[in-house]
Amino acid sequence: MAVPGAPASGEDSLIARYFKPLATDPGAFGLSDDAAVLKALGNDIVVTTDALVEGVHFLPDDPAETIAQKALRVNLSDLAAKGADLAGFVLSVALRKVDESWLAAFARGLGADATAFNCPLLGGDTVSTSGPLMVSITAFGRVPQGTMIHRSGAKPGDHVVVTGTIGDAALGLDILKQGRVAEALAGDAASRDMLVSRYRVPQPRNALASAIRGYAHAAMDVSDGLAGDLAKLCAVSGVSALIDLKSIPLSKGATKALVAGATSMGEIVSGGDDYEILCAVGADAFDEFVRSAQAAGVAVSPIGTVIAGGSTPKWLDAEGKELPLTRTAYSHF
Amino acid sequence: MAVPGAPASGEDSLIARYFKPLATDPGAFGLSDDAAVLKALGNDIVVTTDALVEGVHFLPDDPAETIAQKALRVNLSDLAAKGADLAGFVLSVALRKVDESWLAAFARGLGADATAFNCPLLGGDTVSTSGPLMVSITAFGRVPQGTMIHRSGAKPGDHVVVTGTIGDAALGLDILKQGRVAEALAGDAASRDMLVSRYRVPQPRNALASAIRGYAHAAMDVSDGLAGDLAKLCAVSGVSALIDLKSIPLSKGATKALVAGATSMGEIVSGGDDYEILCAVGADAFDEFVRSAQAAGVAVSPIGTVIAGGSTPKWLDAEGKELPLTRTAYSHF
Repeated sequence: MAVPGAPASGEDSLIARYFKPLATDPGAFGLSDDAAVLKALGNDIVVTTDALVEGVHFLPDDPAETIAQKALRVNLSDLAAKGADLAGFVLSVALRKVDESWLAAFARGLGADATAFNCPLLGGDTVSTSGPLMVSITAFGRVPQGTMIHRSGAKPGDHVVVTGTIGDAALGLDILKQGRVAEALAGDAASRDMLVSRYRVPQPRNALASAIRGYAHAAMDVSDGLAGDLAKLCAVSGVSALIDLKSIPLSKGATKALVAGATSMGEIVSGGDDYEILCAVGADAFDEFVRSAQAAGVAVSPIGTVIAGGSTPKWLDAEGKELPLTRTAYSHF
Repeated sequence: MAVPGAPASGEDSLIARYFKPLATDPGAFGLSDDAAVLKALGNDIVVTTDALVEGVHFLPDDPAETIAQKALRVNLSDLAAKGADLAGFVLSVALRKVDESWLAAFARGLGADATAFNCPLLGGDTVSTSGPLMVSITAFGRVPQGTMIHRSGAKPGDHVVVTGTIGDAALGLDILKQGRVAEALAGDAASRDMLVSRYRVPQPRNALASAIRGYAHAAMDVSDGLAGDLAKLCAVSGVSALIDLKSIPLSKGATKALVAGATSMGEIVSGGDDYEILCAVGADAFDEFVRSAQAAGVAVSPIGTVIAGGSTPKWLDAEGKELPLTRTAYSHF
């Protein structure tokens, strides 16, 4: 990505116009070079990459601002779960056509988030495609050397903890697709808007990164459904878990949809796009972790306990009856 | 990108099967986590990102191996020009369908290059698309702090230098499209193959990275045509240049196509996809630079001189007549 002095090709002028203002970090060189410099400052660099495709990860008529925000935030969410402080990102965008007003809105959404999360654009590439819009972002964080939090590391006796509320984004998608939830919440525009916004604009918990780094034995972000992601975390950690279904934190909108019979706990814990943090915290450090989360302004809920064993985590209702999960993980394939 | 222990979604099993064997770096955690760790080792991290789209940057019937190689190598070429030693890369692939034999070949090509260039896969993301195949790579290098070579920095009196030969890839593309070059070289399969291979598999000059770092005042890789890229380097450096057309290094195949009238010097210096290094080297250090390049096994050719001024570089033939350039830069838009 480069802003040329001399002959401005199509790509170069697009970049100069829309993306250069976002490249505020000195290491981005105003996008006037072929590469950026990322200072490690004595830390490890944590790297994650996630791509979003129109029609798969967002809807064709989603606003350009929220597409940009979602593309960045799904990456920031990974870094939060790894306990990393944000350092910057690079962007690839494949466009079907050059729509200046769309690009301006996209850059506006991206720039607002880059500022809000203190995570500057370091470089990128714009290409043309005959297919769906695609946004691929690689984001960088920093952790003191050797302190990245892994999926592995959960220990029997740990509290299983999630941030925020679970299931909202999948319900929001159902609303955008005019599904059962849209019908159940027909008279409640506020809940509908909240759920849709949870689908379009994830709320990555980067404020919790240092608490994760300080207290979590294992962590990952919940992107493919809580049930499937917990199963992955347990498997990699060589443990299992008992989950108390009634402890799963639900938003008002989700509760309403549940009460109306428009969704089920099975769907809620299997839906994708939550972008909350799932982590395992030792019982001894739990109170301190909660205080640290409160100080960071991030809601955390203990939802169960890590246990020894290799079986799939059990999801138990108030009567101790196990929830049958037909689909534990959401896959875009 | 993650290899799950428990429920293998489509994406996860693809990754485990094809990409995990490439993730040899300890910081990749065998692709079993949500992020990778990149050690800076006291250096600056140099970051570049380039995306390739089927039908735009490669042809739909190009072999999977060479698509993978090209996607990686265009990024490595940027790092070479910045004087960076290779550290690793992350990958996003958008696939129209899951074709296991195609994926196996793609991973084979990528793995061969990761090994050959000592640049391991650190992580990635596979997504589905209804459109053309797209491969987006972000690659990382290391330079001692503050030593990345920029596009800016060329000084009057510097030698303008290029590596390898110029124009081959554009001629190779013409051959694949059954153009005039294919006709002119109809009886010369070796030249045709060489030129096609230059289009499909760039030869990034990473062996020259330390010499660039040691001796170049300014450098960039030539990807959008030598004439346009030189104009950019000069503009950012606030200088101009006089180029001696007969010094432009040409391959046998390019010379043959030129002699046959199937191409022109104007086309050769404006064609894209060279992935050679263009740099400015001070006259005092030039001999040492050449010795260092020889030791690295990379051919370098001085093609002109940096001069003061803000005009577009001049391309002069043997009689001192200026080459009129109708199209100085290749744009994919």
